[in-house]
Amino acid sequence: MTTLVFGHKSPDTDSTASPIIWAWFLSHHQPGAAEARLLGTPNTEAQFVASRWGFDLPPVLDDVAEGQDVVIVDTNNPAELPASINKANVLSIIDHHKLTGGIETKTPIEVTIRPVACTATLMWQLMGGHGGHAPDGIKGLALSAILSDTLEFRSPTTTPVDKRLAEMLAQDLGIDIPSYAAEMFAAKSDVSRFSAAELLRMDSKEYTVDGVDFRVSVLETTSPQTVLSRKDELVAAMPQVAHEDGAQQVLLFVVDILKEEATLLVPNDLTRKVAEASFGATVTGDTVVLPGIMSRKKQIIPSLKVA
Amino acid sequence: MTTLVFGHKSPDTDSTASPIIWAWFLSHHQPGAAEARLLGTPNTEAQFVASRWGFDLPPVLDDVAEGQDVVIVDTNNPAELPASINKANVLSIIDHHKLTGGIETKTPIEVTIRPVACTATLMWQLMGGHGGHAPDGIKGLALSAILSDTLEFRSPTTTPVDKRLAEMLAQDLGIDIPSYAAEMFAAKSDVSRFSAAELLRMDSKEYTVDGVDFRVSVLETTSPQTVLSRKDELVAAMPQVAHEDGAQQVLLFVVDILKEEATLLVPNDLTRKVAEASFGATVTGDTVVLPGIMSRKKQIIPSLKVA
Repeated sequence: MTTLVFGHKSPDTDSTASPIIWAWFLSHHQPGAAEARLLGTPNTEAQFVASRWGFDLPPVLDDVAEGQDVVIVDTNNPAELPASINKANVLSIIDHHKLTGGIETKTPIEVTIRPVACTATLMWQLMGGHGGHAPDGIKGLALSAILSDTLEFRSPTTTPVDKRLAEMLAQDLGIDIPSYAAEMFAAKSDVSRFSAAELLRMDSKEYTVDGVDFRVSVLETTSPQTVLSRKDELVAAMPQVAHEDGAQQVLLFVVDILKEEATLLVPNDLTRKVAEASFGATVTGDTVVLPGIMSRKKQIIPSLKVA
Repeated sequence: MTTLVFGHKSPDTDSTASPIIWAWFLSHHQPGAAEARLLGTPNTEAQFVASRWGFDLPPVLDDVAEGQDVVIVDTNNPAELPASINKANVLSIIDHHKLTGGIETKTPIEVTIRPVACTATLMWQLMGGHGGHAPDGIKGLALSAILSDTLEFRSPTTTPVDKRLAEMLAQDLGIDIPSYAAEMFAAKSDVSRFSAAELLRMDSKEYTVDGVDFRVSVLETTSPQTVLSRKDELVAAMPQVAHEDGAQQVLLFVVDILKEEATLLVPNDLTRKVAEASFGATVTGDTVVLPGIMSRKKQIIPSLKVA
């Protein structure tokens, strides 16, 4: 049986690149052993990255069949995985997010979770020296995933291991990191063709905080005005998106990659309370700027409180 | 803050030895950084092993304080951990059991789960070359934990990595494995002083199967008659133990280490159905012999069905 390797829903660059990297690794000793899948259409940055390094986008997977061999990467949260994930035969999990609980297996499997910035970094560790034998395309994907997840080393999630590996890969590939990262971030910022609902779901994860179900959406951009100029439209789309996705409220953080700050849209009293309780912010209008906030994983989620 | 390292409730040799091993490792670069704890009185084999290698038994921990730094080893199941585990600051999990789900963290932590027979084996892998610098006592604990978990390499959970490491440690320590394992198993089999309820809880884990809550108890022994001669007393104690522990039924498997088989006590219709549905057994009396069954983790739990 071919093992399917996939990341989370609303795939970003790491959740697009890492399944391709790990499927390559698993197939290296046994061709065809594993194939990458996506759980949705990847964002514009991930599409740029796949194309830049010569890969077609992996097929989109709607659900997994009972007993299907799978490897889960870049998440351990069942809410971000196919509905039938607990009926699949999960062989291993490779991730760098907080433990969510909810994935159960019948027998012991391999689980490796490490607080590094990027799943691709962890994969390079797990491959031992084998990463050195990767073709340029695979190395390019790993470099891109690290630059994406660390926002070119600006995010506080960045570890020395992520940075060293990215620099090594860039040198190996003859890539100038600042100009390549700028190309990636421009692709990520090119979101004008998306509807408000699509923007709210583009990089969005579900979390329950103090009994309230939130969709915590982050848009990382070098051009925050492109998104913030559509504030009214985004706020208007929130109730419908929340309702359809079984959440009570969408929280949209627009992260300015270059200024290293986030702007949270504050459409109602619940969101205002969240902003004040979680970040000690003083909210006066319908948005609030949160200086230094760049990482959902390391800064936003650990801080979230309703009151 | 001193980090507390502990395994599961009803500690066996692995859950007694591994916290001591890992606390030693964590304290090696920073004396006093970590201390081992036990979540109950360890079994007779674990007591023999600690004494044999010169260790006092670690203190017993009733619950963890909010924000306490902890490392969890040899389990990832909240039912086997202190009631307040999700309020503690879990730094890492090192385990070799199936994923249960239920432990949640606020930020990404280190989780390493591998399908090896013994937590101590996995720790030796994680320590890299550092295990070679361990004092004899620590090496002796690791050897003992492997021999215990693998039933001297008889259990189907045994991997080549466990076996090689045990042989290397034994050679290093000048230990003859067969005679040392026989001493350990004799200590484990010396259970005559325990009450029936204590025997049912000695090596017992909670599992929900098809909506029924079971306590799955295993007694590994070289002298099964010592236990089976007390069958009536054990069966009589089951309802009370199940009731007190919030389970519907205790399943007691008496594993004959030398004959490599298990005897399941069959006191009622529910247990008979479990024996038939799970192991294809034909039950005629109030016990049934299950040839080749030695491992709860690899054989019993994955097979359990109610009907």
